[in-house]
Amino acid sequence: MSEKKILLTESEIPEKWYNIMADMPNKPLPPLNPATNEPIGPDALAPIFPMGLIEQEVSTEKWIEIPDQVRDIYKIWRPSPLIRAYGFEKALDTPAKIYYKYEGVSPAGSHKPNTAIAQAYYNKQEGVKKIVTETGAGQWGSALSLACSMFDMECEVFMVKLSFNHKPYRKSMMNVWGGTVHASPSELTEAGRTILAKDPNSPGSLGIAISEAIERAVHTENAKYSLGSVLNHVLLHQTVIGQEALLQMEKAGDMPDIIIAPFGGGSNFAGLAFPFLKLNFEEGRKIRAIASEPASCPKLTRGVFRYDFGDTIGMTPLLPMYTLGHNFVPAPIHAGGLRYHGAGVIVSQLLKDKLIEARSHHQLECFEAGVLFAKTEGIIPAPEANNGLATVVQEAKKCKEEGISKTILFNLSGHGNLDMSAYDAYFSGNLEEHELTTAEIESSLAELNTPTI
Amino acid sequence: MSEKKILLTESEIPEKWYNIMADMPNKPLPPLNPATNEPIGPDALAPIFPMGLIEQEVSTEKWIEIPDQVRDIYKIWRPSPLIRAYGFEKALDTPAKIYYKYEGVSPAGSHKPNTAIAQAYYNKQEGVKKIVTETGAGQWGSALSLACSMFDMECEVFMVKLSFNHKPYRKSMMNVWGGTVHASPSELTEAGRTILAKDPNSPGSLGIAISEAIERAVHTENAKYSLGSVLNHVLLHQTVIGQEALLQMEKAGDMPDIIIAPFGGGSNFAGLAFPFLKLNFEEGRKIRAIASEPASCPKLTRGVFRYDFGDTIGMTPLLPMYTLGHNFVPAPIHAGGLRYHGAGVIVSQLLKDKLIEARSHHQLECFEAGVLFAKTEGIIPAPEANNGLATVVQEAKKCKEEGISKTILFNLSGHGNLDMSAYDAYFSGNLEEHELTTAEIESSLAELNTPTI
Repeated sequence: MSEKKILLTESEIPEKWYNIMADMPNKPLPPLNPATNEPIGPDALAPIFPMGLIEQEVSTEKWIEIPDQVRDIYKIWRPSPLIRAYGFEKALDTPAKIYYKYEGVSPAGSHKPNTAIAQAYYNKQEGVKKIVTETGAGQWGSALSLACSMFDMECEVFMVKLSFNHKPYRKSMMNVWGGTVHASPSELTEAGRTILAKDPNSPGSLGIAISEAIERAVHTENAKYSLGSVLNHVLLHQTVIGQEALLQMEKAGDMPDIIIAPFGGGSNFAGLAFPFLKLNFEEGRKIRAIASEPASCPKLTRGVFRYDFGDTIGMTPLLPMYTLGHNFVPAPIHAGGLRYHGAGVIVSQLLKDKLIEARSHHQLECFEAGVLFAKTEGIIPAPEANNGLATVVQEAKKCKEEGISKTILFNLSGHGNLDMSAYDAYFSGNLEEHELTTAEIESSLAELNTPTI
Repeated sequence: MSEKKILLTESEIPEKWYNIMADMPNKPLPPLNPATNEPIGPDALAPIFPMGLIEQEVSTEKWIEIPDQVRDIYKIWRPSPLIRAYGFEKALDTPAKIYYKYEGVSPAGSHKPNTAIAQAYYNKQEGVKKIVTETGAGQWGSALSLACSMFDMECEVFMVKLSFNHKPYRKSMMNVWGGTVHASPSELTEAGRTILAKDPNSPGSLGIAISEAIERAVHTENAKYSLGSVLNHVLLHQTVIGQEALLQMEKAGDMPDIIIAPFGGGSNFAGLAFPFLKLNFEEGRKIRAIASEPASCPKLTRGVFRYDFGDTIGMTPLLPMYTLGHNFVPAPIHAGGLRYHGAGVIVSQLLKDKLIEARSHHQLECFEAGVLFAKTEGIIPAPEANNGLATVVQEAKKCKEEGISKTILFNLSGHGNLDMSAYDAYFSGNLEEHELTTAEIESSLAELNTPTI
């Protein structure tokens, strides 16, 4: 057997982040002030983000240097391995070659620390003492707690109540790294109290938790807010994944025909795909990139492209994106990290321009793929990652049907060690899923009075 | 900063296991038949182990070849990284250099798959269809479930009831890999029924679970039994850890003065330490190796060296080892993998001959060390590993007091992602520990009627 893992040395950790804004044929539309519907400038973000990150948010420079201190902390787990899925290929009896980039090697178990470390660094540089954030499945909250621990800062996390109750170990991880965790909606914020007044049993959502975290950050001295996906600077930081993968594919003497990644707000998808899309832009290659989203939260495949809020209460600027409406509360599927109503601005524009693709899956199909992967490759994937695996299985089967060997590169964005109750539900046959109707989506979108595009 | 991680390529995975039996000045005494107190031969083990493993159990060959198929599966996660603990060193303000070998990168999250894969291979070679075993904290049961999944075999696990109830995620992992899990003591075996008749609320122990697993294996067609520590062949398989670490230390231009590892039955300790002890034997070096055990189960520091059973009921041969007595039931500490009454035969002989050292710690001290490690190095250690970290902290502080820079090599045998409830207990102040009295130990030992040495 040839090498299973393609490893890089620490000196091969990228020195710059790749900013796809520089290469996009159509730049994203500007964010709008919801009071005036006029474009907003960087200053409008200053109350909640440090200037170092705001500059990255609006930058069109192609390359942005990674600070040495960030690269030094990346060394705890980076470069992450690229692994050939020989066992999974054999089980699928496919002529396709399947590689996966494994981001679960980080101490938090996912790709999220790639941006958490960077964000903590820029906040620390500007004297921030505490970072407030939200978390869905807990991946982001634990990543930011870890990052704050590394920079000796405080971290406060509003965790979607559904996950808070179902994933106690995620909360414990945040505590080990010194983070403080609240179930959201909470009584600690006006936003939370408003939601609880309407529905005392609200399971929460990422949109609600974002509202709470922003409110809390704004009202806390020396504190800033942080988001783990969606925004341009977050996607930017994640491009270390794809840059490493590109180098690793070259070392393997191969190049992907298809890139597949799970999709929540866009960060792990962008992280893997953007450095390859760069080749499409620069060299006219035709590498396909497919974002895999849950059928119960299908903003890319069934949402609309229009301006919408990033949060539920309406505290953020209006962003041009694929959305199901900021009041949409997704069904309580186990891939909690994908339960978000909107898609990142850059990714939305790329989809609009047909430069990337999207596909949705029911969770039963996702867990079937995940269990097969665990039994053949060993690693138990995070429920979010199972979404991408469902697409991998479809593409691998298509290769078999057509008798064509394509090369598939997949982002195994995290392990499922902290999500085992989801697998319990799968084995006990409790993964039925509510079929989302067109009427339900239309009803959520009908509430929107934000500008259309 | 210099390199944080020292990595090896897949071609540097060891090709042979190192058998310390060849180099020991005093070979261990033979196992005895409990009915006759006469030495037993390899044939006596044939009902429960395949011949391939029995041959290794009694071998005095210095090097035993690792089958290609085993090395190919090792490639999923091996070679494991050697990491310099710069952050931990800084927090301890010590002149010591601290390195850790990180075995938590395996899909099961610990060093256990190193032998599980090998054991499954030799069973498969001899036509075995099912392997039955026991597990304490769940590390071993999940490792063997993973291994059986890789070789398309069945796996049945008797899990100590205390862990079965406290660590449901471990059970879920075994299920994902196709393993069947029972809480032990169970009604499925005569051994389990005997224990339950005496104490229906028995929390179980490794000794009891071993009795059940052996009984079940013997009475199941085409099934064999497997043990995850203690035995010679298990320690042998783990030497891939130390062989890699030796090569990595050489690449780092350094060599350990002190090797530290947590101690349950001896497998992760032996795995790291034996290839370095080889240098002591061959070149007269004076590398110290310290085994770190819990104060509530101190067979090395407070037990006696005599013949005893490996299990509670008395189904195994009599083994010459440090023991607290096979009826000793350790307090329900969180480091479940260290709750075993005896120590492996080889390690016991080495301690008897003063070729290694031992030290015990209370769990509060262990978790303090573990949390400091997590906050500075990122990785959250398994509770078992925290025992070793407590010793590392002591040695690092001693270096500071004496103003001497020593090089410490530590086995971070697993991550704590599946053990977060233990950290919850730590943070909520519920880690008090019963102080084990001399009378309690004497009372357990007084029950022994096995041969003294």
